[in-house]
Amino acid sequence: MNRTSSWVSDLNVSLVTDLYQLTMLQSYWREGMEEEATFSLYSRRLPEHRNFMVACGLESVLQYLETFRFTPESLEYLASLGSFSGEFLEWLGAFRFRGEVRAVPEGTPLFPQEPILEVTAPLPQAQLVETFIMNQVHFQTLAASKAARVALAAGGRPVVDFGLRRIHGVDAGLKGARAFYVGGVHATSNVLAGCVFGIPVLGTMAHSFVQAHPDEETAFKAFAALYPWSTLLVDTYDTLEGVRKVVQLRGELEEAFKVGGIRLDSGDLVTLAREARAILDEGGLKEVKIFASGGLDEHSVLKIVQAGAPVDGFGVGTRMSVSADAPSLDMAYKLTSYGGEGRLKLSLGKGVFPGRKQVFRMERDGVLLRDVVAREEEDLPGRPLLKTVMREGVRLPEGRVPLEAIREHATREVASLPARIRALAPADPPFPVEISPRLQAYQEAVAERFSTG
Amino acid sequence: MNRTSSWVSDLNVSLVTDLYQLTMLQSYWREGMEEEATFSLYSRRLPEHRNFMVACGLESVLQYLETFRFTPESLEYLASLGSFSGEFLEWLGAFRFRGEVRAVPEGTPLFPQEPILEVTAPLPQAQLVETFIMNQVHFQTLAASKAARVALAAGGRPVVDFGLRRIHGVDAGLKGARAFYVGGVHATSNVLAGCVFGIPVLGTMAHSFVQAHPDEETAFKAFAALYPWSTLLVDTYDTLEGVRKVVQLRGELEEAFKVGGIRLDSGDLVTLAREARAILDEGGLKEVKIFASGGLDEHSVLKIVQAGAPVDGFGVGTRMSVSADAPSLDMAYKLTSYGGEGRLKLSLGKGVFPGRKQVFRMERDGVLLRDVVAREEEDLPGRPLLKTVMREGVRLPEGRVPLEAIREHATREVASLPARIRALAPADPPFPVEISPRLQAYQEAVAERFSTG
Repeated sequence: MNRTSSWVSDLNVSLVTDLYQLTMLQSYWREGMEEEATFSLYSRRLPEHRNFMVACGLESVLQYLETFRFTPESLEYLASLGSFSGEFLEWLGAFRFRGEVRAVPEGTPLFPQEPILEVTAPLPQAQLVETFIMNQVHFQTLAASKAARVALAAGGRPVVDFGLRRIHGVDAGLKGARAFYVGGVHATSNVLAGCVFGIPVLGTMAHSFVQAHPDEETAFKAFAALYPWSTLLVDTYDTLEGVRKVVQLRGELEEAFKVGGIRLDSGDLVTLAREARAILDEGGLKEVKIFASGGLDEHSVLKIVQAGAPVDGFGVGTRMSVSADAPSLDMAYKLTSYGGEGRLKLSLGKGVFPGRKQVFRMERDGVLLRDVVAREEEDLPGRPLLKTVMREGVRLPEGRVPLEAIREHATREVASLPARIRALAPADPPFPVEISPRLQAYQEAVAERFSTG
Repeated sequence: MNRTSSWVSDLNVSLVTDLYQLTMLQSYWREGMEEEATFSLYSRRLPEHRNFMVACGLESVLQYLETFRFTPESLEYLASLGSFSGEFLEWLGAFRFRGEVRAVPEGTPLFPQEPILEVTAPLPQAQLVETFIMNQVHFQTLAASKAARVALAAGGRPVVDFGLRRIHGVDAGLKGARAFYVGGVHATSNVLAGCVFGIPVLGTMAHSFVQAHPDEETAFKAFAALYPWSTLLVDTYDTLEGVRKVVQLRGELEEAFKVGGIRLDSGDLVTLAREARAILDEGGLKEVKIFASGGLDEHSVLKIVQAGAPVDGFGVGTRMSVSADAPSLDMAYKLTSYGGEGRLKLSLGKGVFPGRKQVFRMERDGVLLRDVVAREEEDLPGRPLLKTVMREGVRLPEGRVPLEAIREHATREVASLPARIRALAPADPPFPVEISPRLQAYQEAVAERFSTG
């Protein structure tokens, strides 16, 4: 937490945008359209088989908005495109984000139609930041939501993020590790994420380590001598033979033996875990843990847990890191008001709600009952989820939450979901999200104005 | 092309790794295991329904290997973990990559078992770079492979990458835009990718632009005045009404009207394109193109093309950007020799081949016939695919290929695939990849040594 991420180079972050944001901006600038606009970022529907999302990515958004500016190099490139006037580029050079952000705290479970965040600012400011905000919040929410399912399936057993090698690029590797941690994963293999975010880093050994040595014994001995509480990978050649070699190592090293665990990375993990446990226990190694990995996701983790296999922890990589069952969310950043008037896009159908909104969450005996999406100014029963986290471009204390607090919030909130929503199988009925009568009436009024307009 | 990517900050790229790379490294260093090792990066199998991959990502790998070093800040973080000795950290501070890389040129179609690249270097060097190499080549190959399918489906009609908002993070956005371009996509909406790689950037307008204006007419007029060849988005309220407004605008502006196209982003695109074409043609706007977008992938693009719908170009976003049908490849970086001896991991089964390898590609009359994976020193009929691109840590001219040349190479090579391999449906039989008798014999010899060892 005490190190800043210099991953997103200040040099070019302003160009992480779609070209049309800039062409639209020049038009707004020419037309003098700088009235206040509100954009709402929300998900239109959940992926099939998913029962909830976990909001994540606000930290990246606020860091971006606080520091946003076009560098001379960026402006030079834009000038080379031939579509922008010198006067406009000069205006861009002075462009800063001075608006307001209201957002649900990171780590909060969310449902369709509920704003993750709302940006209110002069139209050009609120529009230009769309692409980056979407890029970050979409992926991080996707990652935290997937991780929450894996952590729920593991039922308290530690899960380590092994996804860096197949996650999509280095930014996803870094932000994903943070999002998985928010979602309930316990540690990551990603060293940069440890450095930047203070997430616990863990690792075992690779098959190549065993292969490079003359034999398994030599590899295990070298590693165990250097890292007393290490986890030895036993499946390079013959898994159960590998486990027996760990027991032999205990005999050889006697009191100096301090191996913490073994890792199974292939084969029938339930059966192998049972056999490995028996070999370890017979060899007097009851304290040596069994760690399982290899193509796992929430379903295979749950299967291992439900089988009662003696697996103490999981390494989950690719399928979590790319959110294999649902690699995208149907998320959108939509203009909902301009110049004090509600806006909506009719071709989207009924599912768009104009204006600034609030979500009221009701619970009973520590279990979430239902949410109501309402107009911002309504005062309904329940806990309002959106808080103002940035005003006039300046981050408020509500927008500065330590990662550990975010993770605890997520754990608590996910635990308070009804059991059927926490389950891996699709919930029937889904979590109830109601639209307040006032918001409904406002939607109808706005729709009428635009269909006749 | 004349701008370098400062995206990957030199400050921390050395930490984009799994912790176990560093713990294994300290062990190698302590044991003096610095003999030459070869690692092979390849795909074990294709995703279901895919017939080929397109290799991509080598440029990122070479740039990384050329500049790799641990900064004092990185070493300070590693010291804080308590697992590494001061002497080892000092050694890390002087660590550089001085090895050799042999690789298939970017843009080359590849199949399972064929090395994308092979790294030969002292064991610690070849091992440490695994995570970053995997992270970059896996994603970029995934992206180029998906884009090739989309471009094939579009049958020459331009495709624009609209994926930045839902691609996984900013690094994937940047590298993905390049990979899509290699795979045959024509342009990107990603401004940074335009700046860094010189890829053509394109954009239209967003629904919010139309919504923020009092009505569609005003929005269209403002945009068309500013950008004479612009593409107007017509589906914010009623699609065909939107098209009629474009025709009206022509009547109003007369010769000043230079709108280049319209974009359809929702609804039944085949029917709407036909109806829009009829309205435009009747209005004397035969030269105005129709551009389609909205949840497209290779299958929906092919459907539109096969229906003969008058669509002149496609904007493809989310489903291409996350490779929705196959968001990961079964790619691995495996130790295949150490100290001059072949290595393999028995638990993986027969599909791992030891030693340094070469792929010989045979073609007849411009159509690829089959590939043979062989030992490096074999001299078989056909064109050898792997070239030495880096030696002693220095990039060779073969490793410095302009992006346009890579894209042309990919287009040519993909066009030379047999028709059933270029098709979207699974090919039966798949493209034939043979293993040379000498490589097979070597595999058996190594397997025997390790199973008895």
